[in-house]
Amino acid sequence: MTGTEIKEMDLKYNLHSWAKQGGLNPMVITKAEGIYLWDSDGKRYMDMSSELVNANVGHGNKEIVEAIKEQADTYCFLSPAFALEPRSKLAKMVIDRMPDTMGKVFFTNGGADANENAIKMARLYTGRYKVMSRYRSYHGSTFGAGNITGEPRRYALEPGIPGFVKFFDPYVYREAVTFASEEEATNFYITKLREQVVYENPGTIAAIVMETITGSNGIIIPPKGYLEGVRNICDEFGIMMICDEVMAGWCRTGKMFAFENFNVKPDIVSFAKGITCGYVQLGGVAVSKKIAAFFDDHVLSCGLTYSGHPLACAAGVACLNYYDTAHILDNVKAVGKVLGEIEEEMKTKHACVGDVRYIGLWSAIELVKDKETKEPLVPYGQDPEGIMPAIIKNLIGKGFYTYSHENTIMVAPPLIITEEQLREAMAIMDDVLTEVDCMI
Amino acid sequence: MTGTEIKEMDLKYNLHSWAKQGGLNPMVITKAEGIYLWDSDGKRYMDMSSELVNANVGHGNKEIVEAIKEQADTYCFLSPAFALEPRSKLAKMVIDRMPDTMGKVFFTNGGADANENAIKMARLYTGRYKVMSRYRSYHGSTFGAGNITGEPRRYALEPGIPGFVKFFDPYVYREAVTFASEEEATNFYITKLREQVVYENPGTIAAIVMETITGSNGIIIPPKGYLEGVRNICDEFGIMMICDEVMAGWCRTGKMFAFENFNVKPDIVSFAKGITCGYVQLGGVAVSKKIAAFFDDHVLSCGLTYSGHPLACAAGVACLNYYDTAHILDNVKAVGKVLGEIEEEMKTKHACVGDVRYIGLWSAIELVKDKETKEPLVPYGQDPEGIMPAIIKNLIGKGFYTYSHENTIMVAPPLIITEEQLREAMAIMDDVLTEVDCMI
Ligand SMILES: Cc1ncc(COP(=O)(O)O)c(C=O)c1O
Ligand SMILES: Cc1ncc(COP(=O)(O)O)c(C=O)c1O
Repeated sequence: MTGTEIKEMDLKYNLHSWAKQGGLNPMVITKAEGIYLWDSDGKRYMDMSSELVNANVGHGNKEIVEAIKEQADTYCFLSPAFALEPRSKLAKMVIDRMPDTMGKVFFTNGGADANENAIKMARLYTGRYKVMSRYRSYHGSTFGAGNITGEPRRYALEPGIPGFVKFFDPYVYREAVTFASEEEATNFYITKLREQVVYENPGTIAAIVMETITGSNGIIIPPKGYLEGVRNICDEFGIMMICDEVMAGWCRTGKMFAFENFNVKPDIVSFAKGITCGYVQLGGVAVSKKIAAFFDDHVLSCGLTYSGHPLACAAGVACLNYYDTAHILDNVKAVGKVLGEIEEEMKTKHACVGDVRYIGLWSAIELVKDKETKEPLVPYGQDPEGIMPAIIKNLIGKGFYTYSHENTIMVAPPLIITEEQLREAMAIMDDVLTEVDCMI
Repeated sequence: MTGTEIKEMDLKYNLHSWAKQGGLNPMVITKAEGIYLWDSDGKRYMDMSSELVNANVGHGNKEIVEAIKEQADTYCFLSPAFALEPRSKLAKMVIDRMPDTMGKVFFTNGGADANENAIKMARLYTGRYKVMSRYRSYHGSTFGAGNITGEPRRYALEPGIPGFVKFFDPYVYREAVTFASEEEATNFYITKLREQVVYENPGTIAAIVMETITGSNGIIIPPKGYLEGVRNICDEFGIMMICDEVMAGWCRTGKMFAFENFNVKPDIVSFAKGITCGYVQLGGVAVSKKIAAFFDDHVLSCGLTYSGHPLACAAGVACLNYYDTAHILDNVKAVGKVLGEIEEEMKTKHACVGDVRYIGLWSAIELVKDKETKEPLVPYGQDPEGIMPAIIKNLIGKGFYTYSHENTIMVAPPLIITEEQLREAMAIMDDVLTEVDCMI
């Protein structure tokens, strides 16, 4: 099919996410290799968002593709009721990569259903029904995952589920008060959270769910001691601490899991994306040994047809092996350091850059009209003139593929990117930011 | 790995659906071909449930496997934002197979998220929040899909979502009144449903969701005129009619979709399973042209990372082509007729068979202690002696793989089964039912 045919057929028959379908003009992609994408006109792009921050090993990874083909020749799918080699192997590999307190895995198809099952297990285990989560968060778009989501993508799922309660995240850059230190910030957020937990009636709270590091909503990295503070509150009141590592996990931050950057062990970890890098869809929930033991004699009231899909598990085994053999964590640390340096320079240089937040190969550039007042480049939830889309279009036109959220730009390349490739990409970003400087 | 190793590793690290993990002893399956499964001891089983009623074309289908391998060599995953050949193609193929009133498709990973998005779209389109569904139903286990589910697998998701209301399904065999005719039954159910809709405040009801034919809960086939009656109520009050064709669709009943057996066109159709037969996970929602047009200028507030996964779409294209080229519908009609005849004989012959319900290659055998009183072989929700599991174990031991739900046994072989294979399998069933006759 030609590019035109693909696009016409797409627009005629396919519904696109999070958009009015009327004005869409999707790129037609026909080839992908390493960190690069090509459209149907042969134009090349650097995939600087790793698709939806899932293509951690980039595109066309030979080891994963071979594993998929080999498994497809054996069998593609068999029921979750059976014991199957790829599923057994991957379950062990996941738990081996977790803290030694973790026990078992329940596999799903993606991040939303990972979170759905994480909440469900916490409620079954504790016998409590309330679930607390944060405003600036995205956990998926099914009713459960969408109701722990705090940002506007939640609204279509309201009236919401009873007992789903929100609290504010440690967004220090835009807090209503100014902190003298990270410790002061942490003290503020943890004090407020504990106060809210007490007022919500702790004996009814099954879980506190957090993206370990907030992703889509602007790479919000918790201040020192914050996650330990949440862990303490959970311990004090018997609340399950659920870390959503769907975007943060699997090497993205320079650690296998983002919570390793802090001194905490969650009770439940939800994951997806990087476990297969999307080659075949896969997500899951890892639970502590304690929770796993509880389900020895209590029914695990969870299930989906494709739990632990063998083709997906085979892709996962190959993917986790690749992280190790290709020393991906080393690359993330080395190239991630460069990314941080470049972004700090950008913040100094560009009037439009209010804040840069980065960890490993995962970062956000937050755009403002005024560095002093921090007035966002576009007001929250509003961008009638399409300023952010225009900036993204400009980046993409110059070969830097990514996406934005509100007034932030996501920079999250595949973890195989070289320093040279990163510098080439960030030079494009630099040009575009210079243009934005002139607009404000 | 040996069978023992696979099983040990599975039980140590992997959580199984809908079960206490303590007593599990899963079969280790290592090979699958056509309608057959083999365990690690080399013992062969006929897959008489098509796994979870999804493996419609059986195992090891060459066309689908080749399509997966070819797509894997091109690219495995690219973002839902792009226009991509396999996704465009499959979206068109789905709509081409639907009534001409249908417009566009939104793809998901499975059945639960198909239903999640179906409800969401109905609520966005109508601006109403209530959703009606039936007690004897299973629609998935995420919060949204699980709250339209009526049977006990819903309970772990309560307190439920406000505005999710249940009504009773047309389970004529066990109704509290006896009907003189199908028409009388239909009149009863439709009158009661309309009455309930009126009392629920029709202007607040976004959708009525039904499995077109109830699957897991015992193949409950609506009486003549029932679905037309529901359609009329929906039309009268501007309610979206959602048909869940996750299990019923894709040739299972001898039609491409189960609603074609009746004289109705739904507004929204959710599907999964048979669209790829599970070779790669895929589900989706098809909406009417009217609803599709609404989302031209209203934001479709739906999304998931793996919407329209290209590898899954490539498998779907091959699978739908296979249904056509292998004349699967013809086989379903021919062999399905034999299945019905055999089951009618069984009902006459066996004291333990209270009812048989069948359509196409999809059927349930309902077991009773007493044909006259219809007392179920095990009371609803209770089977402390494990009578049903023992029957299933007996069947599996004799090479007939399937599963049960309450007091019914699922018989739903791959749609490629031959008459000879079916007769061989049903002879096993006959033996086992003879043993059950002696127990009651
Ligand atoms: C942190 C987080 N959790 C959950 C999800 C939902 O995952 P999925 O899109 O696979 O349902 C996402 C998706 O971006 C995510 O970033
Ligand atoms: C009618 C029906 N709807 C929805 C589902 C849920 O599908 P999944 O298990 O893929 O989430 C099922 C699963 O058996 C089903 O039978």
